[in-house]
Amino acid sequence: SSPSTPIRATLFPGDGIGPEIAESVKQVFRSAEVPIEWEEHFVGDQIDPRTQSFLTWESLESVRRNGVGLKGPMATPIGKGHRSLNLTLRKELNLFANVRPCNSLPGYKTRYDDVNLITIRENTEGEYSGLEHQVVRGVVESLKIITRQASLRVAEYAFHYAKAHGRERVSAIHKANIMQKTDGLFLKCCREVAEKYPDITYEEVVIDNCCMMLVKNPVLFDVLVMPNLYGDIISDLCAGLIGGLGLTPSCNIGEGGIALAEAVHGSAPDIAGKNMANPTALLLSSVAMLRHLELHDKADQIQDAILKTIAEGKYRTADLGGSASTTDFTKAICENLIRRT
Amino acid sequence: SSPSTPIRATLFPGDGIGPEIAESVKQVFRSAEVPIEWEEHFVGDQIDPRTQSFLTWESLESVRRNGVGLKGPMATPIGKGHRSLNLTLRKELNLFANVRPCNSLPGYKTRYDDVNLITIRENTEGEYSGLEHQVVRGVVESLKIITRQASLRVAEYAFHYAKAHGRERVSAIHKANIMQKTDGLFLKCCREVAEKYPDITYEEVVIDNCCMMLVKNPVLFDVLVMPNLYGDIISDLCAGLIGGLGLTPSCNIGEGGIALAEAVHGSAPDIAGKNMANPTALLLSSVAMLRHLELHDKADQIQDAILKTIAEGKYRTADLGGSASTTDFTKAICENLIRRT
Ligand SMILES: CC(C)[C@H](C(=O)O)[C@@H](O)C(=O)O
Ligand SMILES: CC(C)[C@H](C(=O)O)[C@@H](O)C(=O)O
Repeated sequence: SSPSTPIRATLFPGDGIGPEIAESVKQVFRSAEVPIEWEEHFVGDQIDPRTQSFLTWESLESVRRNGVGLKGPMATPIGKGHRSLNLTLRKELNLFANVRPCNSLPGYKTRYDDVNLITIRENTEGEYSGLEHQVVRGVVESLKIITRQASLRVAEYAFHYAKAHGRERVSAIHKANIMQKTDGLFLKCCREVAEKYPDITYEEVVIDNCCMMLVKNPVLFDVLVMPNLYGDIISDLCAGLIGGLGLTPSCNIGEGGIALAEAVHGSAPDIAGKNMANPTALLLSSVAMLRHLELHDKADQIQDAILKTIAEGKYRTADLGGSASTTDFTKAICENLIRRT
Repeated sequence: SSPSTPIRATLFPGDGIGPEIAESVKQVFRSAEVPIEWEEHFVGDQIDPRTQSFLTWESLESVRRNGVGLKGPMATPIGKGHRSLNLTLRKELNLFANVRPCNSLPGYKTRYDDVNLITIRENTEGEYSGLEHQVVRGVVESLKIITRQASLRVAEYAFHYAKAHGRERVSAIHKANIMQKTDGLFLKCCREVAEKYPDITYEEVVIDNCCMMLVKNPVLFDVLVMPNLYGDIISDLCAGLIGGLGLTPSCNIGEGGIALAEAVHGSAPDIAGKNMANPTALLLSSVAMLRHLELHDKADQIQDAILKTIAEGKYRTADLGGSASTTDFTKAICENLIRRT
């Protein structure tokens, strides 16, 4: 599309603090004159029988049509008979890889400096199969499913990503010393793909050892690829290294180039509507969406303004120890955007 | 047994650096005049058909008879037809709980201060069932088994431990939002036991969130109890917080009061026989064994000497950035033992 034709993207503001942080993204995009036209879809209050969840079929169609979207937090309503909204999205849109870059934010100090790694998580199977049953009273089992197809697909994505981003190493994380067949198949697929990328160093790291190494010395890692549950665990651990889920972007990749960027933190109902939420994770996720669209100039511009605002430290939200409101922080980012131009 | 009758305890020096670090324990016990008589068993070079492993039936009988033991690292020989020695031990001796205290070592600086927590891991089932199969070509599954019996048993142990050690809080770690039946049963059992301990605060923490909290602020935790794989992962993460597996003790608890303390680090064949290995993890594990025997005076005395030697910093092994040999470090501990008396 030419710069004058706006690109349509789906926006799920989500609930809780979702609408406030989504408003922050919209404002920053307006300031940066990003050629995106948002197609907003709210989480409804009725279960759509086609999705078995509060997420409507129309909203899923919107992502399918547009190919890109941005998602705020959605609390899964408590009760039976419908699935987690996050899982519904992953399943219905076949979002097979969850990509989470994790970088130390200049000027926001944690115990770790120079963290610069990416976790790539298989997002459709493994321990998330949903297959569980009671064998006899007091004995339950759940199935972990690993397929060659999904393992190859996420491994391909990881190596492709590493190469495209000039990364040097891919580490496959596993527990194949115990789960020889399931994690063994995952590793076999990673090895097959690795052979096609002789310039990228490939290694295999057992998950327990990986966690120990991550807390001791995270700079040892570059790109990490792994089955679903390990990705869930390790991506949160890595987020913790740089300050938490409020600061880390995430992007889900589906077949046919679909990308749904999302803030993976909760909907924080306790501070919802109070103009206190930190929009950083959703803003950085929107940057990931722009990169997926190859709008790198806009992506760089917005990312720089976010990082600059955090580094300056004058406007920080409560979760980072400051007292700025969501709108103050957003305004400061917009000013840093303009100053740069 | 009266102080004059020595208590018999089984010792598995293990392989690689095992014999050297076991020698260090023996020497420290001699200096401290601990009334223990070791019954040593080596890992053989023949598979015992009764254990399907290099661990002989006689060596297992020794632990059963003595009720206590200490184990160095055992590398699982590569090849088919026999099981991991660690898993054989857990299974044959029904070692249902793995207890790992994790404390910051005074004088050995890491990114974290004041870590003081205990992980208690279910050690017999869950993802370690060994039940896996190929459904069709390219599709494999593994079974995670959770039973009411094993979950209650480890939960009972955790609360009993918390109470006996004056701890205030037990956190059950789970992923019951995804594995509702298996991890759900685990939580249900923990809740049942928690009701019997009204003075201990009980909470439930999702594993991904737990890992994030641990790297951000580990002092939030006290006693953690969890299914097998989560325990494997989280105990290594926690070890990383205070410096690694070379510094953390571990003790396996079985039915009928059996206790097998062990160093959980590897056998480090690259430095074996070079008098370079750090015996700290095995020494601290031997202290755990003494506490199990209620030999608290000897335990305190040895623990103080180990911590003092590390804090003084004059004799440190290579893994801690020093250049002391295993025997130098051991001698320094023995001297600190005597100086104290
Ligand atoms: C909310 C939960 C179902 C989800 C998951 O386990 O995948 C979350 O932890 C995540 O990482 O997106
Ligand atoms: C060696 C391996 C089988 C073992 C495990 O996974 O339990 C180890 O990591 C441990 O924690 O004792």
